[in-house]
Formats: sequence, structure tokens, C-alpha cells
Amino acid sequence: MIAEKMKNMVANSSAIRAMFEEGNRMAKLYGAENVYDFSLGNPNVPAPEAVKNAIVELVNDSDPVVLHGYTNSNSGYADVREAVAESINERFDTTFTGENIIMTVGAAGGLNVILKSLINPGDEVIVFAPYFGEYRSYTNNYDGVLVEISPDTETFQPKLAEFEQKITPKTKAVIVNTPNNPTGVVYSEETIKEMAAIMERKQKEYGTDIYLISDEPYRELVYDGVAVPYLTKYYANTIVGYSYSKSLSLPGERIGYLVIPDEVTDSEDLRSAANVATRILGFVNAPTLQQKLVAKCLHEKTDIGFYDRNRETLYNGLKECGFACIKPEGAFYLFVKSPVEDEKQFCADGKEFHILMVPGSSFGCPGYVRLAYCVSYETIVNSLPKFRELAKKYF
Amino acid sequence: MIAEKMKNMVANSSAIRAMFEEGNRMAKLYGAENVYDFSLGNPNVPAPEAVKNAIVELVNDSDPVVLHGYTNSNSGYADVREAVAESINERFDTTFTGENIIMTVGAAGGLNVILKSLINPGDEVIVFAPYFGEYRSYTNNYDGVLVEISPDTETFQPKLAEFEQKITPKTKAVIVNTPNNPTGVVYSEETIKEMAAIMERKQKEYGTDIYLISDEPYRELVYDGVAVPYLTKYYANTIVGYSYSKSLSLPGERIGYLVIPDEVTDSEDLRSAANVATRILGFVNAPTLQQKLVAKCLHEKTDIGFYDRNRETLYNGLKECGFACIKPEGAFYLFVKSPVEDEKQFCADGKEFHILMVPGSSFGCPGYVRLAYCVSYETIVNSLPKFRELAKKYF
Repeated sequence: MIAEKMKNMVANSSAIRAMFEEGNRMAKLYGAENVYDFSLGNPNVPAPEAVKNAIVELVNDSDPVVLHGYTNSNSGYADVREAVAESINERFDTTFTGENIIMTVGAAGGLNVILKSLINPGDEVIVFAPYFGEYRSYTNNYDGVLVEISPDTETFQPKLAEFEQKITPKTKAVIVNTPNNPTGVVYSEETIKEMAAIMERKQKEYGTDIYLISDEPYRELVYDGVAVPYLTKYYANTIVGYSYSKSLSLPGERIGYLVIPDEVTDSEDLRSAANVATRILGFVNAPTLQQKLVAKCLHEKTDIGFYDRNRETLYNGLKECGFACIKPEGAFYLFVKSPVEDEKQFCADGKEFHILMVPGSSFGCPGYVRLAYCVSYETIVNSLPKFRELAKKYF
Repeated sequence: MIAEKMKNMVANSSAIRAMFEEGNRMAKLYGAENVYDFSLGNPNVPAPEAVKNAIVELVNDSDPVVLHGYTNSNSGYADVREAVAESINERFDTTFTGENIIMTVGAAGGLNVILKSLINPGDEVIVFAPYFGEYRSYTNNYDGVLVEISPDTETFQPKLAEFEQKITPKTKAVIVNTPNNPTGVVYSEETIKEMAAIMERKQKEYGTDIYLISDEPYRELVYDGVAVPYLTKYYANTIVGYSYSKSLSLPGERIGYLVIPDEVTDSEDLRSAANVATRILGFVNAPTLQQKLVAKCLHEKTDIGFYDRNRETLYNGLKECGFACIKPEGAFYLFVKSPVEDEKQFCADGKEFHILMVPGSSFGCPGYVRLAYCVSYETIVNSLPKFRELAKKYF
């Protein structure tokens, strides 16, 4: 008999994952080239050549007892944490040291570590719809309560008036994700400043600490020179969660980090708690070879051109078909308005043309679907005639 | 302000880890060769050469999009799971398929996955003292209640009469760890059969399911030809947690697996729950390169000779000094009786001679200390004169 809490989880098992498994099933049935699987953010861009070279170098030149051993601290190798801090400082004009960095099992691991460290049962965690559906599970893991801010479907920027209203004395954390999954929207500096001012006001009003958790797996994936503000510079109680899954195309390797700045309330306690949470949640430490690897690849650049071409082609193609969609400034997702009210119907219709899309209700935003365009360019090009056929059903 | 549940955890942060960090501090201060750090199970045997070769082969010959990508199922690569199942079947005459295997972020990740899948708040988890202290944290993560069976300090075999008494209708799981950390004791087939009979009786009596979780990171580390029974063959509701940390000397890489046999009650639900738990706890999937790596190294053997020499030398050396200790049949730990009642005092005395040991109270068994002899042979040899000096304090 499985745990009560897991029963619903199993029943509603991630629609994204289910889609992904369905995509694999269909690929076997119809041939991979005849399935247009936009379901999962699994980058199709290979890891840079430097990743391969770094791995070979590491296993050839390192003492395996150290390379594959437990790290001295559960928070990671000291030299890796130092290198990560320096790289952030260089790029964002911050002043972190290795002590501010906790190496994590990807951003998902990092978010669990920080929520475990912060959340008491009943504490509220605010998210802005549409949001990555896993935030609900992560919050639920620690008996927190997810509070949704409704989506602004004009701009998909956060609704700040509603945000201010929904902050209560129980609000412990606010999760933002910019560039955003599933919309690709980037929050402007103006927006960030307003959010920070609201949180400052509410912290004072309630005498509480409200931690801003910035989930940043898509930081490097921005187009047209758009700037993504570094949030620790706008609000003291900010924690950053980062992942190399997308920037170095290493999603399966589970490597990322948390930044817990000195300016955060109870920073030292929080870093100790994150260190302990890393251990007791069973991560123990971020995979060691991957830690050393990313430290060697801090200057590698993501192949933005690849994603940009996909973005332009798919966005323009869908518009031509008559679909409505905001043009993403970052990440590798398009969030498309469903031409029928029930977007699950739209997803089902798509499947008839071997097009796999994830319903917006998985992101707290029904009436829309998410397309992950981190697929091959051929998939994009070949999908367009299918979208045209699909469009005929509605327009 | 960190979470209430974490405050104690941070305060009592693992004595083992604290020791390990202390060891590093002392090594810097006095030189590594003058510190006898027996605190952590971080193998000093390098990973076999085959590990290096397999990694180089994998990065040279695989499509990086697949090698470093998300796995189709959160439970791991299908081919890896199949290979692991076959390897178990070969060695233990079982009949598992890949469906019974969940690849995990080490045994610690696996234990968290299975406890998350099983435990409702208030459910009881039975452990036999002395036990790996993390079982307490893992159980606490899911609001389970740890129930200790007191140690039999004559044999360090499980006290079965007390076990039977302490099983209640709330008992959801029993964790066994054989070869045992911290004693090195292996449970005999006889013991296993009796335990199984007790659990069968209690399941019937209460109409409940009691899951036996076998934590087996030390399965391959046995001496003198001792046999370690494969527990799924003795009790239907058995789940195995395995790790390659010790057998392939990859503790930092975080790779292991769970076996959930078909015979387990609600096996399919439990496997689905474990798949979902892997995702929502933030593991997402076991590190992919490591999955492929272990599949290539399933026939590699641990260098038992190395540990055996350490075992004999340290065991005999300590006995000669006058210390009392059961001779371990497996793992790489000695569990030594403290010559003074408060074993923390003994640990403190040892530190004066740069000898680092972990107090038995970390394992629910005060009055004893654990020595991890997975260190270099030189450390063992050079520590013996220090132990002799230390012994003079007491004998």
C-alpha cells in the first residue's frame, strides 16, 4: 500500500512526462521522423565539444579516489564552489565567495534543498501562473501551501497588484522563473524592482522574512540581446537556483547550484541547513565528476543560434496557421493559445497529426499549450504542414 | 529563519561528517600522513581501471544528446535497468526484469525514494541498533517514526524476540543493513529466515503489509567466503537498495538502484510511486553517464584483498593493544568497545593522538566507536603505535 500523499501524485503523474513517454511510444510505432514531439525540455543541442574533452581530461589526469569520492562538504568541492562564485561575479558584478554556493543535483535538487531548509508545514509559497508544475510537488514535499497568482494572458508578466494582495504573514517564499517556462517571457528590470519593493513592504508590515527563490535554468537562453536582471542585486532575501541542464545540455547528469548570499536573513544558518538538507534528502553531494566538469566549462557558451532559428521558424509558422502566441524572449518554449476552450482537446487533436504538446493546465494556465522547441530543426520544419492541417479544424 | 524541523538537524549535524571535516582541518595543520582519519566510509581503493576506460569510451562513442539527456523514464535507461536485472539474476538466481529496477542517486537516494513512496505520517520504521544514523533523518523526512531494537552487544546480530514485540499495526517498514555499518556483521541465513517468519506472522495478525528494506551498499564487501543471503528470496515484501559507491569506489557519483520485485504487495503501484518520487524529490533521474558506466562495469570486482589486509592488521593491532572488538565479516568498519563508559570521551582522547573515530551514539549504540578502515594501509600501520599510546590511558 503506497503512501496516501503519493496516491494522487501517481494518478496525476506529470502530464509532461506522460507525453514524453507517449512520444517514445509513437516514435517506435510511426518512426521518429514522423512524430513531432514538443513535450519535454530535453535539449537537442549536443553538449559542447569542450564537455567531452573535459571529461576525458578529468578521468585521465585526476586521482580517481578524489574525482569519484565524497566531497569534503556536502555542499560540494571547495575549488568548484569558488570557481562558480567567481564566474557569477565576473558576469553579474556580484561579490560571492565559494561559501555562498551549494552545488546541487540540478535545479530540481536545489529547489528541494532550499524548500526543505525553509518551509514549515502550512507556510505559503507564491508562484505566478503559468508556472513549472513541479513547484507544486516540491512545495507539497514539505507540506507547504502553493499560492497561485493568476496569469496575465496579455503579457504573461506577473500580476503585481494581485501578488501584493496575496502575500500573508504565512508567505515564506516566492518562486520566480525568468526566462519563464512555459511562456519564454523575461521579467523586466522594472518588474523586478516593483516586486522587490512589494516584498520589502510586506516584510516590514508583517515582521517576517519572505525569500525570493529565482529558478534560473534558462538564464543563458535569451534572444535579441534581452537582459535578464540578476535578482540578488534587487532584493536582499534572494536565493538563486541554477542548472547546467540547458546551458551545457547536461539535463540527465543532474548538476546545478544554489546561491545563498550573505545578505539573506540568517544566511549562515540557511547555508548550514542547505548543506544538511543535501545530505539527508539523499543527494549527499552533487555528482562529483560533473562538479569538476562544469568548473572546467564555465566559459562555454550555449548555441543560442540553434534555438533562435527554431524559435523564429516555429513562431512564424504557427502565426501563419492562425494560432495565437506571445513571442518568447528566452528559454525554448512557445505558449500557444488553444483554439478551443479545453486545451486538452487541442492536445488530443494534435496527437492525430503526431504532434505532442503539453496542456497549459499542467502549468496552472488552462486554455494554452506548451511547445518545447529544443528539438531538431527538421522536426520544426516538418511539423509545420501538420500544424497547417491541424489549424484547418478550427480556423 | 530556517524550517523548525531543520533546526535540530543543523544543531546535531552528522557527527560523522563533522569528524570528516575535522580530519581535513587536522590534515592541513599536521600533514595528512600524521592524521589517522577513520571517520568516513570514503573508499581509498581507486575505481577499477575499467571505470576510466568505460567513461572514455562512452563520451567518445555515444551521442551526447542521449548520453547526457533526460532518461525516457525517471526510473532510468531501459537498457541499463535490463542489464542490472540480468546481473542480479545471474548472481542470485532471481528472475527480475528491467521493470523491477529503479536507478537511483546512490543508496541514500534510493532509500529516500522508497520511504517517500511508502510512509504515511506516524508510520513506524524499525531499525536494529547499531544502525546507520541517516535512517533516522530519512524516516523523519516523511514524518515516519523510527523504532529501535536494542543492540545485542555480544554478537551484534538482531534481537529477534524484541523485534517481534515491537512490531505494531503501524509498522510499515523494517530496514536491515547486512553486511552492517557500523559493525561489519553479516546476518546469517538462519537469522533472515526467522526474521521473515516473524514478519509473515505479524502481517497476518494485523492484516498489514510490512516492507523489508534491505540496504546493501556493502554486499560485495565480505571476507573469508561468507555468504550474504539475497533477501527477496526469503520474504515476498522485500525491497533492495543498492549502491555502487563501495563496490566500484564511486561514492561521489551517486549511482545505485532499487529492486522492487513483482512479489511485493502492490508492486506496480509501488514502482509507479518510486518513479514519481524520483522525479518530485528532485533527483529526476540517476546521473545518466553513471548509469551507462555501471552497466558496462557489472562484472568488475571490488578489491577485497585491500580491505581484508586492512581489516586483519587493524583488528589484530587493536586486540593487541587491549581493545575489545567483534571481528567483522563484511563492510569496512570495526566497531570497538570504548574503554570508558562515555565513548565521546574516548573519541576526544583519540583526537589527541590524531586518531579520528565516530562515537557509537551516532549509530544508536553508545559505549562503542566506529573505525572505517577503507583508508590506506600506511594509515593503518602508522596508527597502531598511536593506538598503543592511547591504550596506555586505560589499560
